[in-house]
Amino acid sequence: MTDTAAEARSVLQRLGVAPAAYKDGALEVRSPIDGAVIGRVAMQGPAEVSDALARAEAAFQSWRSVPAPQRGELVRRLGEELRRHKADLGRLVSLEAGKIVQEGLGEVQEMIDICDFAVGLSRQLYGLTIATERPGHRMMETWHPMGPVAVITAFNFPVAVWSWNTMLALVCGDTVVWKPSEKTPLTALACQAIFDRTAADMGLTPGLASLVIGGSDAGMALVDDPRAAIVSATGSTRMGRAVAPRVAARFGRSILELGGNNGMIIAPSADLTLAERGITFSAVGTCGQRCTTLRRIIVHADVYDRLVPRLAQIYGRLPIGNPLDDGTLIGPLIDRAAFDGMQAALAQAKAEGGTVHGGGRALADRFPDAFYVAPALVEMPAQSAIVRHETFAPIVYVLRYSDLDEAIAMHNAVPQGLASAIFTNDLREAERFMSAAGSDCGIVNVNIGPSGAEIGGAFGGEKETGGGRESGSDAWKGYMRRATNTINYSTALPLAQGIRFDID
Amino acid sequence: MTDTAAEARSVLQRLGVAPAAYKDGALEVRSPIDGAVIGRVAMQGPAEVSDALARAEAAFQSWRSVPAPQRGELVRRLGEELRRHKADLGRLVSLEAGKIVQEGLGEVQEMIDICDFAVGLSRQLYGLTIATERPGHRMMETWHPMGPVAVITAFNFPVAVWSWNTMLALVCGDTVVWKPSEKTPLTALACQAIFDRTAADMGLTPGLASLVIGGSDAGMALVDDPRAAIVSATGSTRMGRAVAPRVAARFGRSILELGGNNGMIIAPSADLTLAERGITFSAVGTCGQRCTTLRRIIVHADVYDRLVPRLAQIYGRLPIGNPLDDGTLIGPLIDRAAFDGMQAALAQAKAEGGTVHGGGRALADRFPDAFYVAPALVEMPAQSAIVRHETFAPIVYVLRYSDLDEAIAMHNAVPQGLASAIFTNDLREAERFMSAAGSDCGIVNVNIGPSGAEIGGAFGGEKETGGGRESGSDAWKGYMRRATNTINYSTALPLAQGIRFDID
Amino acid sequence: MTDTAAEARSVLQRLGVAPAAYKDGALEVRSPIDGAVIGRVAMQGPAEVSDALARAEAAFQSWRSVPAPQRGELVRRLGEELRRHKADLGRLVSLEAGKIVQEGLGEVQEMIDICDFAVGLSRQLYGLTIATERPGHRMMETWHPMGPVAVITAFNFPVAVWSWNTMLALVCGDTVVWKPSEKTPLTALACQAIFDRTAADMGLTPGLASLVIGGSDAGMALVDDPRAAIVSATGSTRMGRAVAPRVAARFGRSILELGGNNGMIIAPSADLTLAERGITFSAVGTCGQRCTTLRRIIVHADVYDRLVPRLAQIYGRLPIGNPLDDGTLIGPLIDRAAFDGMQAALAQAKAEGGTVHGGGRALADRFPDAFYVAPALVEMPAQSAIVRHETFAPIVYVLRYSDLDEAIAMHNAVPQGLASAIFTNDLREAERFMSAAGSDCGIVNVNIGPSGAEIGGAFGGEKETGGGRESGSDAWKGYMRRATNTINYSTALPLAQGIRFDID
Amino acid sequence: MTDTAAEARSVLQRLGVAPAAYKDGALEVRSPIDGAVIGRVAMQGPAEVSDALARAEAAFQSWRSVPAPQRGELVRRLGEELRRHKADLGRLVSLEAGKIVQEGLGEVQEMIDICDFAVGLSRQLYGLTIATERPGHRMMETWHPMGPVAVITAFNFPVAVWSWNTMLALVCGDTVVWKPSEKTPLTALACQAIFDRTAADMGLTPGLASLVIGGSDAGMALVDDPRAAIVSATGSTRMGRAVAPRVAARFGRSILELGGNNGMIIAPSADLTLAERGITFSAVGTCGQRCTTLRRIIVHADVYDRLVPRLAQIYGRLPIGNPLDDGTLIGPLIDRAAFDGMQAALAQAKAEGGTVHGGGRALADRFPDAFYVAPALVEMPAQSAIVRHETFAPIVYVLRYSDLDEAIAMHNAVPQGLASAIFTNDLREAERFMSAAGSDCGIVNVNIGPSGAEIGGAFGGEKETGGGRESGSDAWKGYMRRATNTINYSTALPLAQGIRFDID
Repeated sequence: MTDTAAEARSVLQRLGVAPAAYKDGALEVRSPIDGAVIGRVAMQGPAEVSDALARAEAAFQSWRSVPAPQRGELVRRLGEELRRHKADLGRLVSLEAGKIVQEGLGEVQEMIDICDFAVGLSRQLYGLTIATERPGHRMMETWHPMGPVAVITAFNFPVAVWSWNTMLALVCGDTVVWKPSEKTPLTALACQAIFDRTAADMGLTPGLASLVIGGSDAGMALVDDPRAAIVSATGSTRMGRAVAPRVAARFGRSILELGGNNGMIIAPSADLTLAERGITFSAVGTCGQRCTTLRRIIVHADVYDRLVPRLAQIYGRLPIGNPLDDGTLIGPLIDRAAFDGMQAALAQAKAEGGTVHGGGRALADRFPDAFYVAPALVEMPAQSAIVRHETFAPIVYVLRYSDLDEAIAMHNAVPQGLASAIFTNDLREAERFMSAAGSDCGIVNVNIGPSGAEIGGAFGGEKETGGGRESGSDAWKGYMRRATNTINYSTALPLAQGIRFDID
Repeated sequence: MTDTAAEARSVLQRLGVAPAAYKDGALEVRSPIDGAVIGRVAMQGPAEVSDALARAEAAFQSWRSVPAPQRGELVRRLGEELRRHKADLGRLVSLEAGKIVQEGLGEVQEMIDICDFAVGLSRQLYGLTIATERPGHRMMETWHPMGPVAVITAFNFPVAVWSWNTMLALVCGDTVVWKPSEKTPLTALACQAIFDRTAADMGLTPGLASLVIGGSDAGMALVDDPRAAIVSATGSTRMGRAVAPRVAARFGRSILELGGNNGMIIAPSADLTLAERGITFSAVGTCGQRCTTLRRIIVHADVYDRLVPRLAQIYGRLPIGNPLDDGTLIGPLIDRAAFDGMQAALAQAKAEGGTVHGGGRALADRFPDAFYVAPALVEMPAQSAIVRHETFAPIVYVLRYSDLDEAIAMHNAVPQGLASAIFTNDLREAERFMSAAGSDCGIVNVNIGPSGAEIGGAFGGEKETGGGRESGSDAWKGYMRRATNTINYSTALPLAQGIRFDID
Repeated sequence: MTDTAAEARSVLQRLGVAPAAYKDGALEVRSPIDGAVIGRVAMQGPAEVSDALARAEAAFQSWRSVPAPQRGELVRRLGEELRRHKADLGRLVSLEAGKIVQEGLGEVQEMIDICDFAVGLSRQLYGLTIATERPGHRMMETWHPMGPVAVITAFNFPVAVWSWNTMLALVCGDTVVWKPSEKTPLTALACQAIFDRTAADMGLTPGLASLVIGGSDAGMALVDDPRAAIVSATGSTRMGRAVAPRVAARFGRSILELGGNNGMIIAPSADLTLAERGITFSAVGTCGQRCTTLRRIIVHADVYDRLVPRLAQIYGRLPIGNPLDDGTLIGPLIDRAAFDGMQAALAQAKAEGGTVHGGGRALADRFPDAFYVAPALVEMPAQSAIVRHETFAPIVYVLRYSDLDEAIAMHNAVPQGLASAIFTNDLREAERFMSAAGSDCGIVNVNIGPSGAEIGGAFGGEKETGGGRESGSDAWKGYMRRATNTINYSTALPLAQGIRFDID
Repeated sequence: MTDTAAEARSVLQRLGVAPAAYKDGALEVRSPIDGAVIGRVAMQGPAEVSDALARAEAAFQSWRSVPAPQRGELVRRLGEELRRHKADLGRLVSLEAGKIVQEGLGEVQEMIDICDFAVGLSRQLYGLTIATERPGHRMMETWHPMGPVAVITAFNFPVAVWSWNTMLALVCGDTVVWKPSEKTPLTALACQAIFDRTAADMGLTPGLASLVIGGSDAGMALVDDPRAAIVSATGSTRMGRAVAPRVAARFGRSILELGGNNGMIIAPSADLTLAERGITFSAVGTCGQRCTTLRRIIVHADVYDRLVPRLAQIYGRLPIGNPLDDGTLIGPLIDRAAFDGMQAALAQAKAEGGTVHGGGRALADRFPDAFYVAPALVEMPAQSAIVRHETFAPIVYVLRYSDLDEAIAMHNAVPQGLASAIFTNDLREAERFMSAAGSDCGIVNVNIGPSGAEIGGAFGGEKETGGGRESGSDAWKGYMRRATNTINYSTALPLAQGIRFDID
């Protein structure tokens, strides 16, 4: 058996995290792999939040005027460091968050990708020059840094979400204060250590990005502090519902990435072999604990009986085990609460008429203090309450449809709006799903699952998903403020809309 | 003396508003020109809001699938109607809101301009096609309609703000429910009548845009109703502070255009003749009741003594009077409350050390039930509390500076962030003011006042101004939702970030 | 029988063209409807070209500094005039170019559409503001007017192509000299008359847009004159081959819209009913004389025998006749040369193994001096020489394929690169056709024919099509020059790329 | 004295160039530093061009379908290699092109910068999704690879221009064949070696980028070959005049970066200390052999007598010498022809009334076979013929003005249109110079010289400069072809512009 604690120590050491940071703190960090304590980290609260914001605000005063391509040079070097430490950091993600090594590495790759992307952005950050209606005038639009960004992240993407926000924020001229999930402080320490070394090597001002490990009091201190110009929060809808009004009340800006209840329509013309792969990765990857995890399959009656039994079969033989082992596809749930939530959902699904395949606890003998489960495939007679609810576990509900309009309506009839997919080879169906009358999600895929976005597109969705956008496209605008400039270089002062107002 | 009531009746008739709509309602509409009752309009409440939203939602189901250029055709025809009725509508704005006819016409021109702009947009609404990292895949981003937009407007731009929102919303495929200020329902009835006739002529589905005249209960019903996908609210910071958290709590989207405390720096090299004109129009236009009204002048010590006395002189001879009369530059305040607020502010300014020029009541004999004032120029020893507060009246505070950094710091040291200006012919100063370390406003002008934006740029600002953007540039994105699409047309299913996850 | 000459006269009169302009000139204008002379127009040559360019250059000096939205106001009014005169102008297009009235009206509608689009553009013409690597610097990109644009158009779109170029050129701040086809001077006179009246009503400087009716000497004078900053030429590849090197030799800019040899792939899953409609309109519309006319159909073997006989049947009953008559779908060829070219092509096709359906002369009794033909459907054993050649007549060649890669290769194996289409309901096929390895054309459609583009996209293609782009998207950039600005507002002078170069 | 030959050998060895490549060829490569032969390179001709294009076309077939971010990974690694070899490559640039080491390093930095930029671009290459006027349709625009790009470069930027073109071309999916100047084949061999190693390490298909060292026959073979989809040529206007019509005649695409005759206006308010630095670097950097070299100064009469004598003084003490030595600011001209051309120009300038300061041969004793010169400052009474001519040497002509309009007119009265600058602190002057009525160049700077562009903006200019754009902004579009897609997913086939064409 792996000694997760020993391995965590050696990885942290290679990543350059000072042992003092994880030896004696009040917060016990347990690996979901075996439930062992793999670190003890100090807890911080509102006072440290305030200090961190003070440093971030001070650093911002000079950072905002550093030319963006020079800010990009920091991000480029961070990318190089992440490349160098990819294996270790990926492994630490597995140890702390329980995802399989392939996914841990994928998450680090996503960090690297966003660095490359942000470096390119650092010479763009394009505003517009705009035609003006007044002679001797010029109009333009420029984008300026906003100030400190509070980045609040969840356990399931313990490092990528930080990097999405931080790399964009940095090239945009903002500074960052990060509060990671209390369940994953070690990976946060590792990222921060990499950041600190790189920034110090470049002789940069301290406080550009800092870390506060704490609970909800720390989080709410960030949320309420007017110095946090932006609050970028990833997590549950419940969290978002608490955060959003408080940030709004102080006229701060929120970037919210909240829950998803991601569906997939399987049309008659679907390539079922592809669909099986797409469903499986999307539904059981990260043990069903992605915000983009596939939670609902809406299957056309004509293929239902071919697909669903085959899926049940695949589900039955998926390798569950230590995520550090090669070949494992399903690692543990994050903790007991997640397990309990899953079981409760399955019970409710049964009560609502569902037929549950799988879903039980696994490997309890080998890992009595960890929570491995068989992924659950649940055939439902209708889209009942439990189906419309996001349970953060590997449960996928299966529904049947016969008409595409009906399927789209069913698909949209949930409160969340993150990710969606259709498997079809029928052009008209695919286009209808992507049209204004199709999926109401922020991510609308064809022949790939809802999970696993590239960093080049904007990530996020409306409804209870919170409306934020991160990563690619023009998501960087969320980290900047826009100034509309009109410059009069004439010797007259004409008014817009042809108004006359003569004081002479 | 003008018979404002008679004139309002005849204008409304020419604009095609049914007399029933303004004859016998419970809400007395008074002209700020003379305090006369010029209409009696029925008050509506939450029930009518709910009905209007139901119609808007029903209309949305088909409107969202009408091709945008066809939606643009509606807006083009609205623009033609507005062109035809410009004189009458401009006059009604004067009658109801009290602004001088030139400004009333300017406001209608702004409606026309936004129509032209939105027609062009109706063939654009550009998303992106994006390079993908996976072979046999394609990525793109499309923008889709959001649903009904609640448009809440203020008395001071009784028609333009509606058109900014409505024309963009319509080409974007949204539908609209409008709640105007209780002080300006007649202009709202006129706009709605124009809309209704035009939409009916085209045989369009009813409910695309509708009007609810009501009080704060109606407003809050709009704010809280989940069917209002977007709440676009223009008004005071106080109003915004009430609205924003409630919309956020239900994960709706807000577009807020709230207060401004707009400043102007007068540098030594400023063209003082231009500056005088710029100050005067910005500070006293619309009797100081624009969100972009100039409220603070920060004057370099070297030119202070040349500029300020001259300004006081200009202020002293500005023609105050009936806004319908040619030559009038300053019409009345909207009501007694505005007058009282102004006087209280002036009293506080004095208490804080200020020297007040002007500011008293005017024309009380001629218009005993209306509130005309002499605009106030207030020299302040420092940027004290009253200066940092937005008083919706023609008061401009004058401050002195000697160093540009100090002036910029002073400029930014208010809670609002809407509009700003510098008058200078010094390139370095102008650029510093427009730089990341310069003005923190959404509108940053050089050698023109903060007031009177063109519709081609995005309008709005951060801080207590609320962060919304309307009108030009890509402000239309605020009325749509973004979908990121990935289409796999290969026969394989590679994962992003190079993750391997093989189920076979 | 219609008296085309009389009708032309009365239409020209209603359009406000002075009779002197078309009464006694040396150039006989014949209607392709009946071969009757419908006008006699004066021919102009290099001297008049030079004068027109002199006026255009003079007008440019002031026009370039007129704010773009004010330039847009001219275009808006032109659009209104075109709306008002749509019926007459459409009819004149039929009379002079021979296209059916529906298509004549469609062409005018395209003019109207581009006006609306250009009005919107007049507040955009967006350049970029760009992040700079140097502190105290700012970068941006602005787009400026170029100068006079020589617009050379062909007979088949006698008015739309002028408007595409002219409306964009005008809002971009350029001026225009137009040389239409010698076959269609009357419509040109009508457009110019509308322009002249509108510009005069607005009190604009003369020379913004002018007309030169002449032959190839006039055309080449435009091509070679350095005052013509841009030469936008629409016509044959032969013409383009003469024009392009001459403009290049004087470092002028060309926008070339030359030949097409537009193909369509019909896949097994195609909706054949749609395909039949798509083929027919694309192949016989404008009597096969559009640059985007469908000239090649590549049909999958599985549907060949269902589609082709049915097409032959449809072809056999298409109403050929006077294009002014309701119900006519196929009007005359433009002239005898076109007829001779068509017959020669059909003869060659037969010699190369083809089976020709239709293609013969029609209505010779009724219209002995006009050239009506039955459209030709030609089944070919292979893509032989005549198939790869563009014959400007209603001939469509039919080829057979069994594998999509083969079909795409066949599709691309022609020298032209304008428009293309696939009819399929198979998502993978459609995407492959639109991919980097698919069609090499500038227009790549799915389930609509190659002909009949909307004005919102950019129009044109590579290879012998000439590479130009007109109409929508950012085609307007072809009419402007880009300036990259760097502004140093610091007191230092750092060099890019970190170069040190110290002179002290 | 430096042994340039020995040093070149050791640098080439460290850069991994096989000795066979530069030992025994027919082309003698001489260092401008001392005239010594530093390499002997084989000459290639049309046959090798044809082979290289064949390989490039073959490689293109697969490269175009490699996802752009994967193509970007090649460019990222090239950037890393360039970072690693910066010192050596910079030194080789000095040895072969004679520019001072600081500039050699700057040129390599520019290569690195463009790599970073292109990596970012590799996830963008944004086309548009566009609103369509037809129900059940979708429009978009995608950008596809074009094919092989012929890159023809000049001696003065022996490596940067290759990288500008190649890095963009590669991420755009194109392949490259490079013909460098015959004067600088060694740096080309070094770049190609770096490329070859990197591509081989990644296991990429051969032929993505290759090198042909040859004379004008090789160049013209590239220009005329239809497989070279794009010809990107940097060099003299004379070269461009030969190339452009030949590429145009075959409907190829040109990207031309030709001559400049770059001017700078010095206004009364200019910071003269900055101006002196800006003038000196721009005028004498690279010994006056940049396409953006400052060649004309137009000085306001009020500051002429302060500036010009001071400049003459600075010119008199600029350190001329071995460019490898620290402290040297002016290295040698490239060869005797350059020297002769310079002397002829100075003689003509004198004949045209000019007063010449400096300009004579320097260091002839120490370097009898090399051509060092004192930079020349030439006061001219008017902008005579020699001033309007680009002489590729460190000559700057000085002219006097008294009115800005006159200065701008003088500035624009040359055939070239590349780079320009104004030094002023007067906002109005700066804006006028940047306006549509200002400088007609592609690069228009304020308070920095015309030379030394950042890579983030588009580089190039109109008139005899050739009209091409390279490097930043959307210059990448020059390397791709645009496809406008319309997809019909409805069951109907409406035509654009509302045309009816019913075949049933």
